[in-house]
Amino acid sequence: MVRKVTIKDVAALAQTSVTTVSLILNHKGQRFSPETIDRVRKAQVKLGYTPDYFAQNMVNKQTRTIAVLVPDINNPFFSEFIQGIEEIAYQHDFIPLVYSAGTQNQKVNYYLKELVRRKVDGLILAVSGLDEVILRQLASQQMPYILLDQSEKQHQSDEIMVQDLIGGQLATDYLIQQGHRRIGIVLPANSAWNIEQRLLGYRKTLAAHQITVQEDWIINTELSKKGGYQATDQVIASGVTAVFAVNDELAIGLYRGFAERQLSIPENLSIVGYDNVDWCEYVRPKLTTVRQPIFELGQEAARLLLDRIADPKKAIQQRILAVDLIKRDSVQTVSPGK
Amino acid sequence: MVRKVTIKDVAALAQTSVTTVSLILNHKGQRFSPETIDRVRKAQVKLGYTPDYFAQNMVNKQTRTIAVLVPDINNPFFSEFIQGIEEIAYQHDFIPLVYSAGTQNQKVNYYLKELVRRKVDGLILAVSGLDEVILRQLASQQMPYILLDQSEKQHQSDEIMVQDLIGGQLATDYLIQQGHRRIGIVLPANSAWNIEQRLLGYRKTLAAHQITVQEDWIINTELSKKGGYQATDQVIASGVTAVFAVNDELAIGLYRGFAERQLSIPENLSIVGYDNVDWCEYVRPKLTTVRQPIFELGQEAARLLLDRIADPKKAIQQRILAVDLIKRDSVQTVSPGK
Repeated sequence: MVRKVTIKDVAALAQTSVTTVSLILNHKGQRFSPETIDRVRKAQVKLGYTPDYFAQNMVNKQTRTIAVLVPDINNPFFSEFIQGIEEIAYQHDFIPLVYSAGTQNQKVNYYLKELVRRKVDGLILAVSGLDEVILRQLASQQMPYILLDQSEKQHQSDEIMVQDLIGGQLATDYLIQQGHRRIGIVLPANSAWNIEQRLLGYRKTLAAHQITVQEDWIINTELSKKGGYQATDQVIASGVTAVFAVNDELAIGLYRGFAERQLSIPENLSIVGYDNVDWCEYVRPKLTTVRQPIFELGQEAARLLLDRIADPKKAIQQRILAVDLIKRDSVQTVSPGK
Repeated sequence: MVRKVTIKDVAALAQTSVTTVSLILNHKGQRFSPETIDRVRKAQVKLGYTPDYFAQNMVNKQTRTIAVLVPDINNPFFSEFIQGIEEIAYQHDFIPLVYSAGTQNQKVNYYLKELVRRKVDGLILAVSGLDEVILRQLASQQMPYILLDQSEKQHQSDEIMVQDLIGGQLATDYLIQQGHRRIGIVLPANSAWNIEQRLLGYRKTLAAHQITVQEDWIINTELSKKGGYQATDQVIASGVTAVFAVNDELAIGLYRGFAERQLSIPENLSIVGYDNVDWCEYVRPKLTTVRQPIFELGQEAARLLLDRIADPKKAIQQRILAVDLIKRDSVQTVSPGK
């Protein structure tokens, strides 16, 4: 195996010191003569020397790296979100590193602990249930970060939010317009803040129409295709004619459960999903859903973070992105008497 | 904002030098007295000092980080593959960083160039069309890496392969057994090596049954759900009664195209997919497919890489993982005369 070229080899060939070479290669060589700089550059090229990454960082204190922490890379929402981030990062010559924490909170803490140690230039945190202690730690390390959908509380960081309350209202209101009165909601117990907002939108809309939510209309399950699938019997037992699934994966899980029981959507159950992942058009019937601007959400998160990295003293920014309802084929119109 | 605690503060509190503190905190302090080590450790804890990550790496030369380069994070195959890697990395206290290169080769080169500069401890390369020059560069930098499904050529690295040729044979042979004689294949033009192997399996199997492949049975499209969807008219025009889709996403794209034309699967077209992503059970009809052990593939790639990092002089290893056919509901039995 070839011996690795070191900075000493460059210094020897350029007939100067290691310190001189280091300063010149790290763009701190203004005080040297043009001849010296030229000799060092030529020696570097001739030997094919690549400065040591860590040593270079000690001097430059920038890695041009951002880390993106998501709960579940297997959810198409997050893969599209990441693609939006990648596009902007790539344009600005930053590398996005993705960490998928899984559903175990233990992992979130493990990854974040490591991220605090690593000098990435900034973080996009799309995980829920972040420890306030960790957020304070990030602030004290002067590490720029963007929170996605965390809470109403005022944070000391830039933040991107989506109109989740309105999204829950849109979904529920549409089902009422189509004649449904017995409307369930499928969501995890102890949801993240943004999903609680969707639940609140559901509750407010039913209340505004004088419909009393019955206890068994609130159906709790894991936030995944499998979770939706496993909730099938509970949905059937609840006697609802329609459900609002708080993400598309849950809706698609219900599709499977209903098909396996020879039941049809929307004839036996109307469903409105949430997110508008690309899969909505690939399932039968095509899924009616609340669209979040997922790709744009990723782009906007990356833009906010890169702005913050470029100007740490900028005033804190908040962006709120709009949602809308995409009507497809998973909701049936029923006569109000049903 | 709180002033950041530095190594100087620790040295002052422990009444010793910065060099002494640095050596002790980097596990190189054997020559100091137990009292000095104890004083430094206590000062570190008292001040809540975290060693600078880059400075620490200058000493330890290990980041406990592996990078995973995949072509497309939006394909459920890769999200499951990454989950397998994560599980093993987590067990061994390594952080997996994921880079999704997208389909543009420009990005692959951009990311790899950066990875060469960054001192990750190793790489898992699941992208196709890797430049031999870059692979040589990795070798000369003594950077451990694992290739997934690259080629038959002998590389100077550990490698994981799947029985792609056998997979193509299994899919095609099953369709012939079910009475099909006009069998198409849907795949990208200029495919990666592993997909070319699936095509070869298809060709070999048809030849073994004295079936001549007609030119319009080979249907080229982008390797995605959208690609499969866009290939619909070409599949219909070819007059085949069955197709082998070289991944599940292509198959699910065809599902959509056929449904939009009021055509049924398997009545109007039998389909065998490839990968066995979890979505196969969430579409109607459930997709018959060639199963790759995706999660295990990720686990095994991570294990090979961590072994190599621990013992760089170990003999080069190759793993070949088996595939099998999962029969579901997307293939119709036809009378041989059809």
